Amino acid sequence: MQEVVHHELLREFTTRVLVACGVPDADAELSSRVLLASDLRGIESHGVARLHLYVDWLAKGKINPRAQIKVLRETGSTALVDGDNGLGLVVGPKANLMAMEKAVACGSGWVSVRNSNHYGIAGYYPLQALQRDIIGWSMTNASAQVTPIGGAESMLGTNPIAIAFPGQKEPPIVIDMSTAVVAYGKIEIAHRKKTSLGPGWATDEEGRPTVDPQKMMFGGALLPLGSTLEQGGHKGTCLAVMVDMLTAVLSGANWGPFVQPFANRNIPTEKQVGKGIGHFFGALQIEGFMDAGQFKNEVDAWIRTMRKTKPAAGSDKVRIPGDPEREAEDKRTTEGIPLLPPVVANLEKVAEKTGVPFPSPSVSES
Amino acid sequence: MQEVVHHELLREFTTRVLVACGVPDADAELSSRVLLASDLRGIESHGVARLHLYVDWLAKGKINPRAQIKVLRETGSTALVDGDNGLGLVVGPKANLMAMEKAVACGSGWVSVRNSNHYGIAGYYPLQALQRDIIGWSMTNASAQVTPIGGAESMLGTNPIAIAFPGQKEPPIVIDMSTAVVAYGKIEIAHRKKTSLGPGWATDEEGRPTVDPQKMMFGGALLPLGSTLEQGGHKGTCLAVMVDMLTAVLSGANWGPFVQPFANRNIPTEKQVGKGIGHFFGALQIEGFMDAGQFKNEVDAWIRTMRKTKPAAGSDKVRIPGDPEREAEDKRTTEGIPLLPPVVANLEKVAEKTGVPFPSPSVSES
Repeated sequence: MQEVVHHELLREFTTRVLVACGVPDADAELSSRVLLASDLRGIESHGVARLHLYVDWLAKGKINPRAQIKVLRETGSTALVDGDNGLGLVVGPKANLMAMEKAVACGSGWVSVRNSNHYGIAGYYPLQALQRDIIGWSMTNASAQVTPIGGAESMLGTNPIAIAFPGQKEPPIVIDMSTAVVAYGKIEIAHRKKTSLGPGWATDEEGRPTVDPQKMMFGGALLPLGSTLEQGGHKGTCLAVMVDMLTAVLSGANWGPFVQPFANRNIPTEKQVGKGIGHFFGALQIEGFMDAGQFKNEVDAWIRTMRKTKPAAGSDKVRIPGDPEREAEDKRTTEGIPLLPPVVANLEKVAEKTGVPFPSPSVSES
Repeated sequence: MQEVVHHELLREFTTRVLVACGVPDADAELSSRVLLASDLRGIESHGVARLHLYVDWLAKGKINPRAQIKVLRETGSTALVDGDNGLGLVVGPKANLMAMEKAVACGSGWVSVRNSNHYGIAGYYPLQALQRDIIGWSMTNASAQVTPIGGAESMLGTNPIAIAFPGQKEPPIVIDMSTAVVAYGKIEIAHRKKTSLGPGWATDEEGRPTVDPQKMMFGGALLPLGSTLEQGGHKGTCLAVMVDMLTAVLSGANWGPFVQPFANRNIPTEKQVGKGIGHFFGALQIEGFMDAGQFKNEVDAWIRTMRKTKPAAGSDKVRIPGDPEREAEDKRTTEGIPLLPPVVANLEKVAEKTGVPFPSPSVSES
């Protein structure tokens, strides 16, 4: 049975749960805004479905609930930040704000972050920048699930890249993409449903292409965007490398195979080459290049031109980056967030553990 | 018959040809360095093979040989530059230098350029930054050859992204990738050899996948990295969009389908939405984040770790981004640049037209 809960109720629940775990009020509110942004935008894997993992890590003392982020080095337009092993959901927004403040002061701001944890959806951060007429970027590394092309071993995370551009009358262009063909969640779904994987998604333990979810899950790996050398898989590898460099090597975080897993599906690595996981935030003030109004009008013209692209046979239209998530947000804001049964079960366990009552669903759908 | 010419001779020839076309000495030298970097690194499509096109455009007055680039707007870390319709090979390096100077002054520099022309290989620019302990980025847009996923029409260029990271004892990581599955050159080669295209490279005029080079060439389009929606082709589309936004919408250059073709294989578009084509250069000073020596040591450790990745069945090893181009450069620096017969024929025509003698080949191979 699927339950549907209003996003404000879920956000309040999430905030209270985090406060019960020792997170200060303001940081708990910030974190729940980031998590709910994910559920609203239809990226369910990164939203409240993960709350039990955060609670678990806080309970075990693996994440510092009262982290004080520190600027370790700084120039007019750049900074290195230590996240004090805090929630990525708190460290991320604070570092992103720093990048945006630098952009206001001197045209752009770039902040590399170490000693953090998972920060929710990459797309949350550029969405904040949009409101200030800033082009925002965000990237994070993550535990290794992807093999470089030519390899048969998970060495890189799904390392997402997000960037957004504001329109005037048109909605913004919002790019939020992992650099792997698909997320691990899609392998799990195929496994649960006993269906095949799509072509080019994954390899088995010898690095051979496989459509068998079991073969990927036991010793195999996800493939980088492009899937094979012939189809440009080395380019997807390059993107994952770029993200690992900017988020982790440049910040002093763990990189490549040394990033600690978030969920318990991978064996934690013993070796540490840095601190925590790494993020990278960028902010470009549009007024540093041209009048923001002029830019946004041009973005509108660009979007309208692209929407007129002749559709391919079997396709109704070309979609603009950010369209699917915005459509989900419109629907979910009014209709509520649908929660799958295992998610509800996990949240009820969280409620029991923390003493925060789980909100009654507005709708139950069988 | 293939000819092999020493790169210094080819560079001198190129410089003299451009001077004969009215380009000032220093700018001609700069341009030939950019073009030869391409031939040395084995990216033959972007090197002297294009010299006749530049000469043609200069002769027809389509490119300004004595361009004076202008800064139209500026902040501490950003600038908007007008390339005065100059050679991209001149405008690009000058704008890139501006980005690097800003990085030295305030941590980072970001320059968006309009009213330029083709700037050679994207990878040339971050290579310049490496020498200064700067992480350099470069992007350019180009005439439309790629359809967005779901479409059946060329709306975006192959819009490349380049970025590089210096090692200490290890060679640098150099990323230089178009955001399409393959370049148009690969379609032309298949057409000439009467072979099939690889899977996922292109569509026919109805947007259906095709492996027939003719069907792509007459009304079809290249596909973005990822090839299909199922394999993440929307992500490749996102990357091409990001490049078009930063290089052209942010600079006031032509974008999307309105970029004028460089070679004459496409029909020029009547409509102009901006000036020329657009570039985007970025520079991040490593010392703004951590000691450059420490960073480079960590890059070394990263590279050595990745080289130990278990190879896939049928693969000898995992390659680091930049490996193939560096191997080509080592070989070609000592052995000379091999030139295909049609390239030699074009260069001989250029020699005749400009009165600059074409250098005798050091080796002729049949």
